[in-house]
Amino acid sequence: MQGEIAVPDDHEPAASPADSHGARTRRSRETVLDATAVLLVERGFGGTTVDEVSRRSGVAKTTIYRHWPTRGDLLRDAGSRLHTPLSTPDTGTAGADLRELVDELARALTRADWPHVLPSVIDAAEREPAIAEMYAGLQSGFATPFVTVIERAVARGEFRPDLDVATLVAALTGPLFYRRWFSREPLDAEFLARLVDLNCRYARG
Amino acid sequence: MQGEIAVPDDHEPAASPADSHGARTRRSRETVLDATAVLLVERGFGGTTVDEVSRRSGVAKTTIYRHWPTRGDLLRDAGSRLHTPLSTPDTGTAGADLRELVDELARALTRADWPHVLPSVIDAAEREPAIAEMYAGLQSGFATPFVTVIERAVARGEFRPDLDVATLVAALTGPLFYRRWFSREPLDAEFLARLVDLNCRYARG
Repeated sequence: MQGEIAVPDDHEPAASPADSHGARTRRSRETVLDATAVLLVERGFGGTTVDEVSRRSGVAKTTIYRHWPTRGDLLRDAGSRLHTPLSTPDTGTAGADLRELVDELARALTRADWPHVLPSVIDAAEREPAIAEMYAGLQSGFATPFVTVIERAVARGEFRPDLDVATLVAALTGPLFYRRWFSREPLDAEFLARLVDLNCRYARG
Repeated sequence: MQGEIAVPDDHEPAASPADSHGARTRRSRETVLDATAVLLVERGFGGTTVDEVSRRSGVAKTTIYRHWPTRGDLLRDAGSRLHTPLSTPDTGTAGADLRELVDELARALTRADWPHVLPSVIDAAEREPAIAEMYAGLQSGFATPFVTVIERAVARGEFRPDLDVATLVAALTGPLFYRRWFSREPLDAEFLARLVDLNCRYARG
């Protein structure tokens, strides 16, 4: 266990004389958010303290609290970076677009750091409305490209006009989330292909 | 905050003279497991300590540690009760069987206590192999009735013979888990009907 490091009250990362105060402040915020993200991945939401963020980042606690009045504010801000932005493919057919999207989401779920942390965010969201609100933003980041692709397919007549888009988004993405965290089965190419096929057959009507 | 209550080392819940030692031991274990389950629902996995289980149950810590050598053993044992056993319907058609199963799972996810705790179990499973193993047992409890119903439908020719059963289980149950914890959308009757329809159309070939 590392000892407490004394850090001056007004400490900010080293700056060149030309640096504006605004640039130093921005860099200090980034340093803190990066350190918080690393801690979140290592220890989850519950195990991430402002003390440890201060130790890891070398930024004084008083400075951290100047940027984020509470630990919850800091965790919410750092937590909102826990995702992989998905592209919005436009190949011309919904099947190919959805296959690309599902592959991209599967790669992120399998290889990125944030899926390790997400259950602790979901757990915190069960108890804390502010975290639930932050998580809703992450969630809509996953869902939006799917909604766009599906609505486009409905608009050009490839998918049936009475399709419930929210059901199809849940039916396409839910099984990936389920396999990653609940059943812990592989997100292999055969599974992803069958899942897109299953959903597209229904969506075509 | 309640103070520490002194409990005699060999304390067991009150017993009638006719009680065998075995019956007292079983009752003491049940008392501890019940108190642990209540704490898990209130505080999640991370917030459940042996100290607090001892306070709530009135069973001495030394007795608790006689039954479960580590906190992890106790949490694993109590955690394995965090589920609602699903029935295995047999109405004669796969569509009706799956609709019943999906409705039952949706009711449990919406109304039972354990769904509040599950994200903290999933979080612990990311870090602790023993918890991951315990959770695998819970997960197979959710999946087994679906597997039985689907295999029966394949055997009687209602579902196609080349159906990948594991994909269909993920495609049927994953969207429920997804809506309960990730998108936080309702598990309403229309959604469940569409989900079963979508999957049955594919499974019939």
